[in-house]
Amino acid sequence: MLEITLCLNPAGDRPLYQQLYEDLARQIKSGRLKAGDRLPGKRSLAAQLAVAVNTVDTAYQMLVAEGYLEAREKSGFFVLEYSDMLPVQPQTPEISLPPEPPPAPVRFNLSTGAVDTTLFPFRTWGRIQKELLYASPELLSHGHRQGDPELRQALASYLRAYRGVICSPEQIVVGAGVEYLLGLLAQLLRGQNAAAAVENPGYDRPRMILENNGISCRCVDIDTSGLTVSGLRASGANICYITPSHHFPTGATMPAGRRAQLLRWASEGEGRYILEDDYDAEFRFDIRPIPSLQGMAGPAGPVVYLCTFSKSLAPSIRIACMVLPVPLLSRYRTAYGSYSNTVSRFEQQTLYRFLNEGYFTRHLARMRSAYKNRAELLARSLEERFSRVTLTGRHTGLHLLLTLPDGPSETQMEQSALDAGVCLRGLSRYYMERVQLCPPNTVVLGYASLRDADIPELTGALYSAWRP
Amino acid sequence: MLEITLCLNPAGDRPLYQQLYEDLARQIKSGRLKAGDRLPGKRSLAAQLAVAVNTVDTAYQMLVAEGYLEAREKSGFFVLEYSDMLPVQPQTPEISLPPEPPPAPVRFNLSTGAVDTTLFPFRTWGRIQKELLYASPELLSHGHRQGDPELRQALASYLRAYRGVICSPEQIVVGAGVEYLLGLLAQLLRGQNAAAAVENPGYDRPRMILENNGISCRCVDIDTSGLTVSGLRASGANICYITPSHHFPTGATMPAGRRAQLLRWASEGEGRYILEDDYDAEFRFDIRPIPSLQGMAGPAGPVVYLCTFSKSLAPSIRIACMVLPVPLLSRYRTAYGSYSNTVSRFEQQTLYRFLNEGYFTRHLARMRSAYKNRAELLARSLEERFSRVTLTGRHTGLHLLLTLPDGPSETQMEQSALDAGVCLRGLSRYYMERVQLCPPNTVVLGYASLRDADIPELTGALYSAWRP
Repeated sequence: MLEITLCLNPAGDRPLYQQLYEDLARQIKSGRLKAGDRLPGKRSLAAQLAVAVNTVDTAYQMLVAEGYLEAREKSGFFVLEYSDMLPVQPQTPEISLPPEPPPAPVRFNLSTGAVDTTLFPFRTWGRIQKELLYASPELLSHGHRQGDPELRQALASYLRAYRGVICSPEQIVVGAGVEYLLGLLAQLLRGQNAAAAVENPGYDRPRMILENNGISCRCVDIDTSGLTVSGLRASGANICYITPSHHFPTGATMPAGRRAQLLRWASEGEGRYILEDDYDAEFRFDIRPIPSLQGMAGPAGPVVYLCTFSKSLAPSIRIACMVLPVPLLSRYRTAYGSYSNTVSRFEQQTLYRFLNEGYFTRHLARMRSAYKNRAELLARSLEERFSRVTLTGRHTGLHLLLTLPDGPSETQMEQSALDAGVCLRGLSRYYMERVQLCPPNTVVLGYASLRDADIPELTGALYSAWRP
Repeated sequence: MLEITLCLNPAGDRPLYQQLYEDLARQIKSGRLKAGDRLPGKRSLAAQLAVAVNTVDTAYQMLVAEGYLEAREKSGFFVLEYSDMLPVQPQTPEISLPPEPPPAPVRFNLSTGAVDTTLFPFRTWGRIQKELLYASPELLSHGHRQGDPELRQALASYLRAYRGVICSPEQIVVGAGVEYLLGLLAQLLRGQNAAAAVENPGYDRPRMILENNGISCRCVDIDTSGLTVSGLRASGANICYITPSHHFPTGATMPAGRRAQLLRWASEGEGRYILEDDYDAEFRFDIRPIPSLQGMAGPAGPVVYLCTFSKSLAPSIRIACMVLPVPLLSRYRTAYGSYSNTVSRFEQQTLYRFLNEGYFTRHLARMRSAYKNRAELLARSLEERFSRVTLTGRHTGLHLLLTLPDGPSETQMEQSALDAGVCLRGLSRYYMERVQLCPPNTVVLGYASLRDADIPELTGALYSAWRP
């Protein structure tokens, strides 16, 4: 009979069977127990350790299931050759890898991607998620490729009521982020010299995604009404990517006249499309949000509408959707109709219920009020500190622009803010071309993740950093 | 004073404040309450309805937050113009949409994409998910672009121990499905006449994704050892996509000799890559799984390893990963390093803990044992029913091939099975070219979602459908 030494701790954190399992596995891996060794009978080991027979049985079954032991009928449990367990066990290789850049520790993060995570509806979201996990095992199976039909129905209603988007649920494609959807869209629009106009200044990632997907991009300057139509025409592009409700990062809202001009441009050529990214239009504080361009164009018009829940829920919950114009829908279904959806069905259904049971509109109202308050506190605090300061874009979205007419240069503003523990970016960083057009001494302040109580300290830090 | 009629039900499902809120919102939307109407004071309405003042206050605040009411200081609550609420309220448009194909109702689904959802670890998964939601609000923020570092560490250990994959966590990219990752990969490998060889017969979707991403594909025939190297050489491709552990759908395992030949092929030209899709290698019932080709090639070798949790957890939980060879990693980070990750961080962290706390290996052992048992039951039942039947691929993966040497044609087998309520596919459907090479009278049976108790009924139905 094999003699084994085991030490279980009945007062330990882990259950006894698990302690026993781990201890035996360790002894097999270390070679103390060898291939062919016969373990003590369950009863005798249980007696030796003063534990229930069941405890030993559970540990043995786990070891059998993982291939450490073999159960031979009528003769007991035998240790298997451990080298069989691991198909290959090479040395840890010495790999020379490009280092991952470490994140800089900051006191105040004023980047535009952050949100206030304390506003997340933990209780409701968690409760719905739990209910779905226990009550709806069918959600483990593949769902509809464009997204669960209930969710698309709820999105169509929400977008119609709150964003003036006119579509049927069949036109909606749910995906794991606007970036992913933009990639699909680019593949759909690629071909015959497709070229896209993007806003300058603007958000750089869409350009990167379009170009990675084989669509060449032209940077077109904006004016106070957004993308200029003359620039768009001169670019020769057949696609344009815009943020009309709230231009990123300047905050300009495209007026109805310019919208109509863009729709006219689209109607003048075959295969012209406008990609409308409505990334944060929920957060308009002064008036009701401007209806979407898609709504002006209608469901068969040339506008693809894109929106995300990154800002209204959380960036790490990867749900976005796009509304395809009817003419693109058949092409989409032919080329991509068999792609699996990229969003977990539990999260899709959680969002569906969150929308459908009215939680979302209440949550939005709560967020809107908190952010509006924060924007006002920040603006007031900045205006009190700095004798000459210009703030733009304070009534929409989650960031504003700050200009110090007689302040240090933008580069100096960025650097001295960082030295004071404030992470922010100069406006010129959003210019992809013709950076000489950028207004001087201007930085972008994303205030979403600030705590209200920290605002005086933040503006104090900025004042010290930027004073002459 | 405005007279309003309200009917609340204290025994109803919904809280009283919500009933009140909904009732008032309905009256505003229907026009019964009009813009400018002043609502009763909170106390007087509470008295009238015999509810707490707080109930009325909550409902009023909700209506204010959503813009139905306006609170005027010292004078009360007034109904706002409802048409302001909805920026655009057009008629439901008549859109002529391509119809979505309705799913056919079936008694037995033998498609290869299904899994047994009853094996899902609901309790543990749900518990971890709940703990994370309440305890880790930082998971709401953007995470690492390649996937959470803890998860990548756990995946590297798991893949090394169980699949012989040799990599560091920095080489891993987590994404919402192999299809998504394959798309990124295609964009990375595209350019200078990239062409990919895919297995014929094989899984069609990878070809579609590669082609949608601008990589032309060549179908290369397989033999009993998998992709032929002569065919690969003749194709002129510089990339090949293979399923070496368990060829889909024939079940062939690529022996070491063929693997070495493929690695030699890759080493003979600049920029040659092998994409190894290890889609279900966890489920090998006769022997330990064959180590991955990636492990033979090493971390700087020419193999990109892809694997999914669709089969080992559930298809609707969209988590997959790829292991990039070191030379591709810098290119990946340059081109895609700023893309947001596509997997919810809560699901990433749930999987991390599930792996790290040992649940995953136990769950796999349980699944492996259940599926092994099911494969055996099905094979035995089929062999008892049919006097002449050949079953192949029964020791690996979640499907097998059934051939009736003197049975009806494949098309007839498919159709009469469907008439009997059994959804399955003929082998020839997986041939993208040279379908004349397909063995006759052969169908693919995915048994993962069958219930053991239904197997006799299923084989009975197939026997009736296919008998001469």
